[in-house]
Amino acid sequence: MTVKPPSAAAQEEAADRLAGLATPAGALGRLGELGVWLAGVQGQCPPAVPERVRAVIFAGDHGVTSYGVSAYPAAVTPAMVRTFAAGRAGVSALAAAHGVTVRVLDIAVDDDLEGIDPDVQRFKVRRSSEPLHLRDALTVEETHRALDAGTSVAAEEIAAGAQLLISGDMGIGNTTPATALIAESLGLPAAELTGRGTGIDDEALAAKTALIQQALDRVKDRGLSPVETLAALGGADLAASTGYLVAAARAGVPVLLDGVIAVACAVMADRIEPGAADWFAAGHRSTEPAQSLALDKLGLVPLLDLGMRLGEGSGAVAAVPVVRSAAAVLRDVALLSELAI
Amino acid sequence: MTVKPPSAAAQEEAADRLAGLATPAGALGRLGELGVWLAGVQGQCPPAVPERVRAVIFAGDHGVTSYGVSAYPAAVTPAMVRTFAAGRAGVSALAAAHGVTVRVLDIAVDDDLEGIDPDVQRFKVRRSSEPLHLRDALTVEETHRALDAGTSVAAEEIAAGAQLLISGDMGIGNTTPATALIAESLGLPAAELTGRGTGIDDEALAAKTALIQQALDRVKDRGLSPVETLAALGGADLAASTGYLVAAARAGVPVLLDGVIAVACAVMADRIEPGAADWFAAGHRSTEPAQSLALDKLGLVPLLDLGMRLGEGSGAVAAVPVVRSAAAVLRDVALLSELAI
Repeated sequence: MTVKPPSAAAQEEAADRLAGLATPAGALGRLGELGVWLAGVQGQCPPAVPERVRAVIFAGDHGVTSYGVSAYPAAVTPAMVRTFAAGRAGVSALAAAHGVTVRVLDIAVDDDLEGIDPDVQRFKVRRSSEPLHLRDALTVEETHRALDAGTSVAAEEIAAGAQLLISGDMGIGNTTPATALIAESLGLPAAELTGRGTGIDDEALAAKTALIQQALDRVKDRGLSPVETLAALGGADLAASTGYLVAAARAGVPVLLDGVIAVACAVMADRIEPGAADWFAAGHRSTEPAQSLALDKLGLVPLLDLGMRLGEGSGAVAAVPVVRSAAAVLRDVALLSELAI
Repeated sequence: MTVKPPSAAAQEEAADRLAGLATPAGALGRLGELGVWLAGVQGQCPPAVPERVRAVIFAGDHGVTSYGVSAYPAAVTPAMVRTFAAGRAGVSALAAAHGVTVRVLDIAVDDDLEGIDPDVQRFKVRRSSEPLHLRDALTVEETHRALDAGTSVAAEEIAAGAQLLISGDMGIGNTTPATALIAESLGLPAAELTGRGTGIDDEALAAKTALIQQALDRVKDRGLSPVETLAALGGADLAASTGYLVAAARAGVPVLLDGVIAVACAVMADRIEPGAADWFAAGHRSTEPAQSLALDKLGLVPLLDLGMRLGEGSGAVAAVPVVRSAAAVLRDVALLSELAI
């Protein structure tokens, strides 16, 4: 199964409609462009306002966390999974405010999460991952299981009526594999992409950068496929999120991307299925340099730049009303031809 | 009656609450800062999510329009007033999508608008304004009537339960008086602030810049008060919008500003009532240079930058969900002290 392009006919019709609205040419700015994209991915003009928006948070721990790459201990991951399950996290508050459903999945949390709703663990692949600067984070078999989990989750969300999907993340240390995947995909050294994650100091940033470069050097002569790259430098949570994005693009359901984790997975999804990125829009600019570089590569410009660096899919959820704004103006504003101007 | 400052106690409580949320320090970025501002202007922590948001569009024509400053003819103004009244304009679509009420008022449209709902014309001050590069746009008496109209409108909107107000604008040529007011207030030459409005070419931009500079030169030695400046360089629609902003600040009701027109009025409101700007937040960055310079002066940074240049209050309405996001996270996210981390 491959990815089809969005509807060129619907996009063209939308561009014509945009030009005919009772607004000065170009006055809707990014909202106009986004409306045209929505028409393309929905295959209809005017586009529907996406009311059923569904976010899935892929949670997992990372072996690199023991090596000083994060400002927080790994024990935060299971605690935050419980906070999502209780609906009390940052993304939960944003999602409730904007009518977005949130589902959290333990893909590779390094904890049994005793007593949690069993649905949260239905797709668990393993506990944590191997330290990616020393050895491959996952086996290829584990990576395929994670990709398949993402495919199944996307199918469930689409069956539930999702008009727009969001992939969120939770996992202490997860900006390290995300940055490694982007660096490898873009062919850039770690020093150009590595950021402070949740807020590490200069010393930890230097250590994190060196660790990512060590990982890149470790794999650089192996001629890895995209899936093997996910195994070597990723983690099961990132592989599951990648599978979810690939499945969304194959099904023709648009995705609003969040920060560096989601965008790293989008880069991998577009490598696995070239053209997948046509189905993605960028919700929020991350403070991580890797995210901006990867978005440039994918040809995407974020809708919001609010300085958020929370992860969880929160920046994408915060951007959902912008997507709705874009659909609403293209659908509901009068055409000049209807007015007596 | 003067403007009181927002509640420092509520702001301090909100800053403490923000620091105690189950999110990394600073991870909420602008949403965190905006939530603290909301707590201050509401005088309570956590702040309420502003559900009742009300926008008023102050419409008026401008004598300068006959002098080649705009890409559109003045006849567009009454046609657009009818489009607002019919709920079919850009701001109407955005407002419907985000649960914002919109009211349009003919303050100085150069048309009788025959057959329109009489409520639209209840506060009409005059038809159009005098060409401000040649003579004062309004008399001081007209300016006071327009300011009073804005005061009355704000009182009505607040009585209707507004938790957040927006001032929109409609009027071909209105970026010219707005730019003149900002230039005069900031003491800057027209060449540093003048923009392309709805899309004029280089030749018209040069003519518009020269006209604004002529207006500035005309008044520069008169030692005008803020109200006299509004009379000399503004227009009745801008004076009414200024009165509305002053009244909101005096009543302690926050305002979300839109583009260059609203921000020019905010500058004048803050000159009439120093401290008024503490009650204002900026919704959207305009492509007009004058807006960014005026926002810098007021110490405000826009929430959105989507390249919109529609006016109508549309950028502010598009930013309403960001304000709601800020309130929701500060109110609903778990405190670290509640979690077992």
